[in-house]
Amino acid sequence: MLNIISEATSHGGMQGVFSQESAACKCDMTFAVFVPPQAASGLCPVVWYLSGLTCTHANVMEKGEYRRLAAELGLIIVCPDTSPRGNDVPDEATSWQMGKGAGFYLDATEAPWSEHYQMYTYITQELTELVGKTFRADMGRQGIFGHSMGGHGALTIALKHPDRFKSCSAFAPIVQPSTADWSVPAYEKYLGNDQATWRKYDTVALIEDGARFPELLIDQGLADGFLQNGLRPWLLEEAIEDTEIKLTLRNHERYDHSYYFISTFMEDHLRWHAERLAK
Amino acid sequence: MLNIISEATSHGGMQGVFSQESAACKCDMTFAVFVPPQAASGLCPVVWYLSGLTCTHANVMEKGEYRRLAAELGLIIVCPDTSPRGNDVPDEATSWQMGKGAGFYLDATEAPWSEHYQMYTYITQELTELVGKTFRADMGRQGIFGHSMGGHGALTIALKHPDRFKSCSAFAPIVQPSTADWSVPAYEKYLGNDQATWRKYDTVALIEDGARFPELLIDQGLADGFLQNGLRPWLLEEAIEDTEIKLTLRNHERYDHSYYFISTFMEDHLRWHAERLAK
Repeated sequence: MLNIISEATSHGGMQGVFSQESAACKCDMTFAVFVPPQAASGLCPVVWYLSGLTCTHANVMEKGEYRRLAAELGLIIVCPDTSPRGNDVPDEATSWQMGKGAGFYLDATEAPWSEHYQMYTYITQELTELVGKTFRADMGRQGIFGHSMGGHGALTIALKHPDRFKSCSAFAPIVQPSTADWSVPAYEKYLGNDQATWRKYDTVALIEDGARFPELLIDQGLADGFLQNGLRPWLLEEAIEDTEIKLTLRNHERYDHSYYFISTFMEDHLRWHAERLAK
Repeated sequence: MLNIISEATSHGGMQGVFSQESAACKCDMTFAVFVPPQAASGLCPVVWYLSGLTCTHANVMEKGEYRRLAAELGLIIVCPDTSPRGNDVPDEATSWQMGKGAGFYLDATEAPWSEHYQMYTYITQELTELVGKTFRADMGRQGIFGHSMGGHGALTIALKHPDRFKSCSAFAPIVQPSTADWSVPAYEKYLGNDQATWRKYDTVALIEDGARFPELLIDQGLADGFLQNGLRPWLLEEAIEDTEIKLTLRNHERYDHSYYFISTFMEDHLRWHAERLAK
């Protein structure tokens, strides 16, 4: 059942916040959807935005500045939460890189995490089905992007579903979480020691193992404090070297990891998606 | 002394948050300033944005979506707080319409409020001087706008300083706080019983008493829950009837009182100001 938490008119469309009882995550999951005015007269393409560590659906909804362009271009924007939530869900309260707010868009295999932390299935199956049947969405035209941990989510999901997604981009993505300082401890707890499973949730490893997506747009701030130890986009550049993946990696002096950076380049990303999602 | 709380590059300019020890309000006052890229090569016009009840400088900074246009048009945007702050400042914790977050842009005359609640002097003198000497600001080209209580602030300040401000606009302003349900109790406490003082902080009364400003732009959502008892823009329409004040009042079906409404029409307002602030 879909619960309407709030709806507000904005830029001629509707910014809604909704929740559903998730079978995958075994808890109520909240998400935001912007429906552009074009939905009144037909189905619209869907662009998924996956958020970074510590975020909920609300950060990009409030600070991402996507509605003006989504309304102009006729895009439905879906913004999920970043982890399961609720008192029953295990957490590491002392770490912002593990547990709530840090689901890493994977299906955990290890106890106690595996009972609720099924974000990959939640997004790629459960929420996808709900969006398709609830909104005036053309599920044959989907794009996906995200920020930081959500950039990792967007890239890995696109690489595993090149037939479903026609476009993919990212702001400051974690391109190799299986070796990055801030994600290795989480992967150990969520996924145990089986490196084959880790590689399913790692952009560089997926490409090494043969996954492909035609084109990727990535923006990266050079004043981003996580660049050297967490993000390392050069590892993606190396990984695609002998592939046909076309990477547009743009480095921006003085920009940091915040939504001040994301909102600056939001327009370019939405135009990138809209071009590739045009019928 | 100016304290830098944060600075972030955005849309080619710089979004900063600063604080100073205010002599008027006898406490540290925080404010946000966006400096557009054009400031690197010359002085830029200044547009003041005054926020509504419960807000700080941060609400519009995060949700107002003003930076893209300010960077395009070369406008410095100054966003003050809405009241004095700190443990020493009196408050009514049970009311969001009085005390902290509810300074109403006036100079209180009654104890215990008068010691700190001097927002009119703080903004029109102290912060104005600080902005003029700190940023590359052309103080001969200033505009002012705001939302709700901040729309009241913008209108009253512009009406009292028609020579200082070349442009004024508002989102869903309180046009007659001296008779509105949500502001009468605050005016009683801040200003006592002297109605002559109340009239100095009331847009309709100021116009009735002869204050003038050439042109005003106001946007109002018709799904705004405060329209009937708090905002009542028709009172302003009546007040200007026999004056030469030119009012552009635009009513918008389905829009509410939130930043989803404000951000939708932010572009129109910034273009309105930029046109009138052009040399």
